[in-house]
Amino acid sequence: MADPTGPDQAHMARAVELAALGRGTTSPNPVVGCVITSASGEVVGEGYHAYAGGPHAEIAALSQAGELARGGTAYVTLEPCDHTGRTGPCSEALLAAGVARVVHAVADPNPRAGGGADRLRAHGVTVEQGLLAERAEAVNIEWLTSVRLGRPYVTWKFAATLDGRSAAADGSSQWITSAEARADVHRLRAEADAIVAGIGTILADDPRLTARPTLDLTADRAPEGAPGPGKRLLRVVVDADGRTPPTARVLDGQAPTLVAVADDADARPDADLVRLPRTEHGLDLRALLKELAGRGVVSVFLEGGATLAGSFLRDGLIDRVVAYLAPAFLGEGRAAVGPAGVGTIAGIHRWHYQDIRLIGPDLRIIAHPLEMKER
Amino acid sequence: MADPTGPDQAHMARAVELAALGRGTTSPNPVVGCVITSASGEVVGEGYHAYAGGPHAEIAALSQAGELARGGTAYVTLEPCDHTGRTGPCSEALLAAGVARVVHAVADPNPRAGGGADRLRAHGVTVEQGLLAERAEAVNIEWLTSVRLGRPYVTWKFAATLDGRSAAADGSSQWITSAEARADVHRLRAEADAIVAGIGTILADDPRLTARPTLDLTADRAPEGAPGPGKRLLRVVVDADGRTPPTARVLDGQAPTLVAVADDADARPDADLVRLPRTEHGLDLRALLKELAGRGVVSVFLEGGATLAGSFLRDGLIDRVVAYLAPAFLGEGRAAVGPAGVGTIAGIHRWHYQDIRLIGPDLRIIAHPLEMKER
Repeated sequence: MADPTGPDQAHMARAVELAALGRGTTSPNPVVGCVITSASGEVVGEGYHAYAGGPHAEIAALSQAGELARGGTAYVTLEPCDHTGRTGPCSEALLAAGVARVVHAVADPNPRAGGGADRLRAHGVTVEQGLLAERAEAVNIEWLTSVRLGRPYVTWKFAATLDGRSAAADGSSQWITSAEARADVHRLRAEADAIVAGIGTILADDPRLTARPTLDLTADRAPEGAPGPGKRLLRVVVDADGRTPPTARVLDGQAPTLVAVADDADARPDADLVRLPRTEHGLDLRALLKELAGRGVVSVFLEGGATLAGSFLRDGLIDRVVAYLAPAFLGEGRAAVGPAGVGTIAGIHRWHYQDIRLIGPDLRIIAHPLEMKER
Repeated sequence: MADPTGPDQAHMARAVELAALGRGTTSPNPVVGCVITSASGEVVGEGYHAYAGGPHAEIAALSQAGELARGGTAYVTLEPCDHTGRTGPCSEALLAAGVARVVHAVADPNPRAGGGADRLRAHGVTVEQGLLAERAEAVNIEWLTSVRLGRPYVTWKFAATLDGRSAAADGSSQWITSAEARADVHRLRAEADAIVAGIGTILADDPRLTARPTLDLTADRAPEGAPGPGKRLLRVVVDADGRTPPTARVLDGQAPTLVAVADDADARPDADLVRLPRTEHGLDLRALLKELAGRGVVSVFLEGGATLAGSFLRDGLIDRVVAYLAPAFLGEGRAAVGPAGVGTIAGIHRWHYQDIRLIGPDLRIIAHPLEMKER
């Protein structure tokens, strides 16, 4: 078995680091990192998947290693694919390169692409799974969630005072949190494939819903060193009755925008429309997420709208919250979160904290649901 | 001058530790710690003020040191008193013991007790002030605030969900935070001299407002090693119209209770009453705090009541908040904080974080106002 404390661990840890370089640009593909060592244990190749259509991590690392990969080990954060998509299967490339051993952290849950480990084993390669699985899982959680649940990974962001207010009594809200916190939001937004907001937010704040309000999005999306084309964030408006005004900034053409309206909505905003069933509380959000998954959206950034956030909470469709809490009090004004289907304390949505830190003067809290209610 | 890095610093740090042992039991006196070193620099006495009427820190340390204090140094967290109260002035005791040098961290702001440094200097003792002043100030902040502002130091505690709710839509609230968090509240409560709650909380939750619901309060209040009598928490109900029912648990006789009613209130709860002016928003809270100060209350623990908390916020009468935030969402229900005089974002109450930590699964946040608005 792979040694959890020695060189194996160090190489896999590096592979996870490499995988992280692809965060935000690989959708609808996973992020993957790969380290190749020679037969004598020296690192001879490193690679990561940088963008959909570009080389897989294994291919990038093998091309660096060349002949030195023969008899060596490949450390991969995700089981090598056995699937011919835009590129050939990595399992075959590893075999052709003469790699003797493959250590991968996480099995590929994708039925179309899985099976790489089996093919490698069938050809005499030693295959080991599970080393640093937790870290490799975390760096790739959006894609893994999207494959496992058939819907995008949903990150919900809100900013509020310590008493849970996102605007003062007169509706003013600029700014509750600091410039540092807002810059952090832009960074997280840029990692997502789609930004989702409710019509209430569109009408009240007229946001652009881009990663940065004024910069070129393509440049935003291509991290340093990533050779591929940047990807544009899809902007999504949840607008059951089709009330998005034609002058809304979200329809400015700077990035693609999808407006989700009800089956029976009369109004038709002049935008890319998707019609969804109505539910008791608005639109069918599961259907919305399924639609987004069908468009290659792996991760969703949900912001803007206490009502919409409450509805996602009610339906158990949030995987992670990023809350920015300013050290401030308003006492009255708009609540950050709207009705979420909780009538009595027994129905409270219980989560757990994952990460808590100061961003400038504000507190950033990352939390996850204790259980995924929808599963 | 006192060396900020050498033995002087170590002795003063120890004196601050000693002072902290008195927290919660010395009111209306300050907490004070003292270390005495001999002429050759060895520690020969330690002491702290444990309870009002008991020996001052200097006296306790001097009695340990005996003749060894002659020619030595006294490290004291607060300027030695020059006042004959229940005990003689410490300045005289230090002179009588032949101490050659006195290093104190913080000057005594109390006009009645101050002047110790001057008298010591007048008798040839070397006196230095300011070493570790910040730490010595922090450990004694309640008493220093009460002397400087003429009102008790106010700690406001609330428990809520991440979205600022303290009860579900049906009013149920047991429990939003964990047993660990509630135990932490009891510990903090026990450090205060008085617990203040609004009539809304009395009517809704019928709390006892004791440090612990069922234990003997005297035992609660005497920390390990403290020789003096425990002190009972004063329970205070802010009840403009005198609606506290005679059966309220807060009137159970387990601890003293003060009910603050308006000048013009008709109803008269059968309790120790104080009549205060009415204001636009309820009772005159400054007058309440002044009344409490007159009764020897140095620190107040404000809890129970979004409305009352909002009023204290509005009036700028809070020195510290301790907020327990559960990793949970309710979406609707009782807001943790009520109207606080903020109509638009420019009027937001801006604070700053001092300490953030996990208590069990919950987040405990300690914050202070950026400025004391009332000053």
